[in-house]
Amino acid sequence: METRAYAVMAEKAELQPWSFDLRSVGSHDVQIAIEFSGVCHSDIHTGRSEWGDVHFPCVPGHEIVGRVSEVGAGVTTFTVGQRVGVGVYVDSCRTCANCLSGMSNYCLEGMTGTYNTPERDGKGVTQGGYATSIVVNQGYVVSIPDGLDPAGTAPLLCAGITLYSPLKEWGAGPGVKVGIIGLGGLGHMGVKFAKALGAHVTVLSHSASKKDDALAMGADEFLLTSDESVFVDHAKKFDLLINTVSAPLDLNLYLELLGLDGTLVMVGLSPEPYPIKAFSMLAQRRRIAGSMIGPVSQLQEMLNFAGEHNILSDVEVIDASYVNTSWDRVVASDVRYRFVIDASTF
Amino acid sequence: METRAYAVMAEKAELQPWSFDLRSVGSHDVQIAIEFSGVCHSDIHTGRSEWGDVHFPCVPGHEIVGRVSEVGAGVTTFTVGQRVGVGVYVDSCRTCANCLSGMSNYCLEGMTGTYNTPERDGKGVTQGGYATSIVVNQGYVVSIPDGLDPAGTAPLLCAGITLYSPLKEWGAGPGVKVGIIGLGGLGHMGVKFAKALGAHVTVLSHSASKKDDALAMGADEFLLTSDESVFVDHAKKFDLLINTVSAPLDLNLYLELLGLDGTLVMVGLSPEPYPIKAFSMLAQRRRIAGSMIGPVSQLQEMLNFAGEHNILSDVEVIDASYVNTSWDRVVASDVRYRFVIDASTF
Repeated sequence: METRAYAVMAEKAELQPWSFDLRSVGSHDVQIAIEFSGVCHSDIHTGRSEWGDVHFPCVPGHEIVGRVSEVGAGVTTFTVGQRVGVGVYVDSCRTCANCLSGMSNYCLEGMTGTYNTPERDGKGVTQGGYATSIVVNQGYVVSIPDGLDPAGTAPLLCAGITLYSPLKEWGAGPGVKVGIIGLGGLGHMGVKFAKALGAHVTVLSHSASKKDDALAMGADEFLLTSDESVFVDHAKKFDLLINTVSAPLDLNLYLELLGLDGTLVMVGLSPEPYPIKAFSMLAQRRRIAGSMIGPVSQLQEMLNFAGEHNILSDVEVIDASYVNTSWDRVVASDVRYRFVIDASTF
Repeated sequence: METRAYAVMAEKAELQPWSFDLRSVGSHDVQIAIEFSGVCHSDIHTGRSEWGDVHFPCVPGHEIVGRVSEVGAGVTTFTVGQRVGVGVYVDSCRTCANCLSGMSNYCLEGMTGTYNTPERDGKGVTQGGYATSIVVNQGYVVSIPDGLDPAGTAPLLCAGITLYSPLKEWGAGPGVKVGIIGLGGLGHMGVKFAKALGAHVTVLSHSASKKDDALAMGADEFLLTSDESVFVDHAKKFDLLINTVSAPLDLNLYLELLGLDGTLVMVGLSPEPYPIKAFSMLAQRRRIAGSMIGPVSQLQEMLNFAGEHNILSDVEVIDASYVNTSWDRVVASDVRYRFVIDASTF
């Protein structure tokens, strides 16, 4: 089936309208008529060849919400008309220790990204959600709870799980003091999930203009990190910090905020290495951890939790024709807090 | 009581004989006639003013084994003649959350180091184990199991606990693949403890000459890190790595060796920050953790474990007059694997 899309056709090109044929719906495939597709900073890194080679044409997009339009004969868990989502990956080897233990996002052979990744059968390259339709194996599709606004839900498929997963892994909950570093597309999801999980939530930001939003989203405290006294006054007070800032930061400063066995999780991806001092780690037996989205089962758990607590991303819905401008605005941090493309405009 | 000692009397001075008066034995104090005192690299960093200000004269030494020579009226757990040990710290605030939870090595007010640290009563500065005697509060003294060689036991009080604690914290045991980076004073204790805990133990070293020792100490494998293929062939194979090397290392290379939720523990202290790439951490949800000796209760647990498994440091016992030479040899990594001073020679 032909789908309309927006694609980067060549290196340094802007996104432009393009049409291509989706693969036919296999026995275990779900075809989805996309309603909304979120704009993630990694779309931009990929589309602009900042993260390595790009298979052109490249249709970005891995925050996908839509309705099932066709199912293969072997599909048991989804029915036509059902609202579903697709996140950052659409396949994995299914045989390695990590896949077999349900952690396919850490597939030892490498997960198959929703776009710009060779299919495991070697027959093509994945194309993402900046399109009217997509075909995905049912094992990598999740159900969207009734009642969740579909546009505000789209960013949960990447930004949401990126924060939810480490919050769960590192025990965010009642009595736990969580700090979210940076209030952007990732950070605002962290505030909402951490609060709903019952943690004490502090936003740490260098931008005073974010304070009102932070508190409105449920943060208990806001600390302005341009004030150096913050790092002294709050030393050893936090249990968990999640760094969502993709610009370089002196993490040693933030490590000082962690108490015994406190963890700083990296989800913002600076292209520069972080200089980490051994003494910052030894004191209070601190930890730094990576975290990369979450497995499909946790994506579903997160969406169910969002449904129970009506957690949505704060979004600006745009037409497809605005997408190049939206990319520039994301790079300039000029969005509160996530662009979502109305897929009917592709 | 007067004690003979070796002290650094002034900046850039070598160690030299010195005598000073110990504090009188208080109600909860234990006076120890020192038998053996280990030479730790941190003695050198401190004594040579590499780690900040030094209170001169400074008597180093925090790997102390001896026999109780006097006890205060309130001492219930130690008796005269008993063999005991003292490690890296001799006091803490005893009131903070960490002290109250039994983790006084991470005292929020700062532990009182065995030497070169102001006493909490403000009356002086602690003096360490390069001496014939020491007086320590009973809460910071541990019992040495019968049958353990006292010279080989001394390094357990710092080097031993430095490795034992993270091995326990991060689950070294049967089925767990542990890598010890560097085979020196710290590393050789890591091999022995990890093996006794039942883990699969690999030594990673840039020095081929360490292979025989590593295997003799119980390592299952030896990997020569000057061979770059090691980092490819063993990618994602380890659960736990402990870096004991105090020289700068590219930890990103080593992080690639960790599988899902694997942890790299820093105990070797490079003065240079380590450049850490975010992508090295995200892949396989890896962790980096600090670890700093262990609490007194774990020091006792470690000694009991060493007693059961007859785990000792490989030591070269020296006279006090050799101590300046021993420092130079430690800096040159020319010791297999720890110097221990015979305290009768002070």
